[in-house]
Amino acid sequence: MRYHKIPDETIRRLPIYLRGLLSSLKGGQKSISSRDLADVVGVNPWQIRKDFSYFGDFGTPGVGYSIEKLIKQINKILKLNIVNKAALVGVGNLGSAVLAYPGFKIYGFDITAVFDIDPKKIGKKINNVTIEDISNIRTLRKRKINIGIIAVPGDAAQGAADRLVKAGVTGILNFSPLRIAVPKKVKVITIDIAIDLARLPYYMPAS
Amino acid sequence: MRYHKIPDETIRRLPIYLRGLLSSLKGGQKSISSRDLADVVGVNPWQIRKDFSYFGDFGTPGVGYSIEKLIKQINKILKLNIVNKAALVGVGNLGSAVLAYPGFKIYGFDITAVFDIDPKKIGKKINNVTIEDISNIRTLRKRKINIGIIAVPGDAAQGAADRLVKAGVTGILNFSPLRIAVPKKVKVITIDIAIDLARLPYYMPAS
Repeated sequence: MRYHKIPDETIRRLPIYLRGLLSSLKGGQKSISSRDLADVVGVNPWQIRKDFSYFGDFGTPGVGYSIEKLIKQINKILKLNIVNKAALVGVGNLGSAVLAYPGFKIYGFDITAVFDIDPKKIGKKINNVTIEDISNIRTLRKRKINIGIIAVPGDAAQGAADRLVKAGVTGILNFSPLRIAVPKKVKVITIDIAIDLARLPYYMPAS
Repeated sequence: MRYHKIPDETIRRLPIYLRGLLSSLKGGQKSISSRDLADVVGVNPWQIRKDFSYFGDFGTPGVGYSIEKLIKQINKILKLNIVNKAALVGVGNLGSAVLAYPGFKIYGFDITAVFDIDPKKIGKKINNVTIEDISNIRTLRKRKINIGIIAVPGDAAQGAADRLVKAGVTGILNFSPLRIAVPKKVKVITIDIAIDLARLPYYMPAS
């Protein structure tokens, strides 16, 4: 089920809230006000209240929002309670960094398959997952993995995407700087790791 | 000068527009409609028009926006025309990926200093920049570098931030998954490379 009325901009903020809520829960908190959550995640309190109102949670006056309930709701909306197995293509510097990054686990993701074309890497274990030859991507459907993470050089990205799509993958996280073309039913999110740097100078004091 | 009336959410989108505009300019275009730009960057046309209206550019009916003028305006607002030298701390997998990533150049950034603590790495050249011992961070003020990029393991992030701040850095791009504490005058943007994956399942068809 999709919550059709939730705007994309809100969907974009839900993982940010989720991370903040998980960290507050870990700290032993049970409820949180929009103002306190605002401090944790760096989003305006009114924006948080508006975003949460899309899924009908208005909190309890004087108490705030139930952290556990919010986490459950956000996980359900984002379908993080259903989809959580991912395959990584490319174990160069970026791919290795992705594998070592603790953040994916926080959202419940497990990178359970890793592919490369380099014979020297294939067969090696990295973070308890054995690197497989890229031709093995065709086994993903059987392994019920429908998310692919592309961390190959730009000129290999389209080829990797084609293999993933052919193997039934319907969601791709693309770290390569090139745009990739996929059928309409496949959702691609392209990450530009440089884009956040571009708004940093705006916030820096004049020197 | 800061354009105080521009909301943070718009500032967040300006680099996205900038990238789209630069790519359209490279393709030989001179002007662009909000609708065409929307297709390129994946933001609603009305949102684009609203964002551009903050800096007084309403385009020309039937022609659209001048691409060159918009690029200049966005660069000026984001201060990308002033601040562009950055130092990288940590040349592990993630740091190496950052150095090799073409995206930073697109926004005019130059990573002109690179630091690590590993004696085996220090002195080596990577992307034409020599890796220096981390103690050399103290020379950044003299070298007029006031942006730092942190790509060290989580437990070393605060130490790296402290060194950068002491050396006069006022903007930090933090790739480590831990929050770092800095004086108020320093702006930190923390990147979570996993956060975009968390909204991917929402857009995937039910399987």
